[in-house]
Amino acid sequence: MQLIDGKAINLQMQAEILQQVEEMVKNGQKRPNLAVIQVGDDGASTTYVNSKIKTCHAVGFESTDVRFPADITEAELLAKIAEINADPNVDGLIVQLPLPKHISENKVIEAIDYRKDVDGFHPINTGRMAMSLPAFLPATPAGIMELLARYNIETEGKECVVLGRSNIVGTPISLLMSRKSNPGNATVTICHSRSKNLKEICRRADILIVAIGKPEFVTADMIKPGAVVIDVGIHRLPSTETQSGFKLKGDVKFDEVAPLCSYITPVPGGVGPMTIISLLKNTLLAGQHKIYE
Amino acid sequence: MQLIDGKAINLQMQAEILQQVEEMVKNGQKRPNLAVIQVGDDGASTTYVNSKIKTCHAVGFESTDVRFPADITEAELLAKIAEINADPNVDGLIVQLPLPKHISENKVIEAIDYRKDVDGFHPINTGRMAMSLPAFLPATPAGIMELLARYNIETEGKECVVLGRSNIVGTPISLLMSRKSNPGNATVTICHSRSKNLKEICRRADILIVAIGKPEFVTADMIKPGAVVIDVGIHRLPSTETQSGFKLKGDVKFDEVAPLCSYITPVPGGVGPMTIISLLKNTLLAGQHKIYE
Repeated sequence: MQLIDGKAINLQMQAEILQQVEEMVKNGQKRPNLAVIQVGDDGASTTYVNSKIKTCHAVGFESTDVRFPADITEAELLAKIAEINADPNVDGLIVQLPLPKHISENKVIEAIDYRKDVDGFHPINTGRMAMSLPAFLPATPAGIMELLARYNIETEGKECVVLGRSNIVGTPISLLMSRKSNPGNATVTICHSRSKNLKEICRRADILIVAIGKPEFVTADMIKPGAVVIDVGIHRLPSTETQSGFKLKGDVKFDEVAPLCSYITPVPGGVGPMTIISLLKNTLLAGQHKIYE
Repeated sequence: MQLIDGKAINLQMQAEILQQVEEMVKNGQKRPNLAVIQVGDDGASTTYVNSKIKTCHAVGFESTDVRFPADITEAELLAKIAEINADPNVDGLIVQLPLPKHISENKVIEAIDYRKDVDGFHPINTGRMAMSLPAFLPATPAGIMELLARYNIETEGKECVVLGRSNIVGTPISLLMSRKSNPGNATVTICHSRSKNLKEICRRADILIVAIGKPEFVTADMIKPGAVVIDVGIHRLPSTETQSGFKLKGDVKFDEVAPLCSYITPVPGGVGPMTIISLLKNTLLAGQHKIYE
């Protein structure tokens, strides 16, 4: 069994991106600039936003940090998005989700210029991805594809089972894994809350991608020996083993599943670090005009 | 075994659409208007275009018929599309595919205003469909969903296997069947040219949707007894049984597969008639501004 080290790949990619940025600067181009909008001061969101901005600077990007109080109107937020859309200095724009209930997330996502949509959430990017056209890929699925590629994990003709059909992970990763590409070209089954015989279906999987949002849902009896297991879940569970009284767990019962696998992502340190770095990769591509002119 | 009669459903839907159009007219609204652009004079394309226009008139629509010679430039075609996009009298616009090689199909599809894209091929509609937002659904997949709905075929929790991953059938039907809806909520496996053990995978299917483009590819040994089989293929094969010397065949070896099924679509008369009627249904929805304002 080999651990897939997302943290190491993250650092490797940071170095690669930094190198490309330095080359851009040497050629007289401007540094990529990522704008991050946060509404309200939810603790988890603040942690994510700060981490994104910090990593931006680590790879030589500029950042544009916009914070609004939770009671900003939808119209004010949309006006700010329009302003950043029009700002040639900004290459990528993300709005940290979730948003307060009085603001429509779909409206906000669709208001972002798809050419700056480095989260890959705009319908144009989703649609172009489904059609195998160049697009900003959503960060977590793109990060999973990167892990499979860098560990040279064969996907062609393999049975891939995806647990979960969310717009940000399950559905897009099923599209990426089934399309004609490498990694990709897998036979993909997408499962969800209405699926039956989940154990049996999971046991067919050469590659099992779990994004179901239930702590330690996947157990040893759901694993085909030798499978590759990618765990997207992250949950903070009470624990007597740690000083903090908490321990991070994934959607997979790691201790019993890991011995059966050929490869598995740990939690933390597997998929998690790939999400931020994929966002930065998209921002680099935006700054280089490699997806759209 | 029950035959799924696409022709009968087509006629039923024509009557329903006509009734809605007459109501629109009674309320002082204009009739829906579908613009169809054909480039060149490929025989099959001409047949399809003429059939679409004829059915438009049968349901009380107006139509705008634009034909260009095969040597029209891409720029001229795009200019015409821009003109129709801006024409408030036209509700739906389709460009008959395939196009001559000197014209980019993707560029043409993306040039159509997504609010008039009643073929459902624009990335915005593909993306919104994937995200379960209101969208113009591509005609063939929408037609299949309509057949499942009108025959009250249970799909929730069923294993659905899709053969083929094309942008116009396989990929979108896999999205529609897996999303949270009725029909839908199925556990969906998408297979393609790189899939292995196809026979075994097909035999898992409670619902088998075949869009692989190979005549009589699916044989009896690939069918789970009691399965629902939807055959999207249509091929004109030489035959000694008919006066014309040809016979239409699907992707499924009908004679040996049909006795094993609970439901099956014949070829012709199954999925085929649903494609045009789905296009007209989209045009009606466009005329009523029911998808976009």
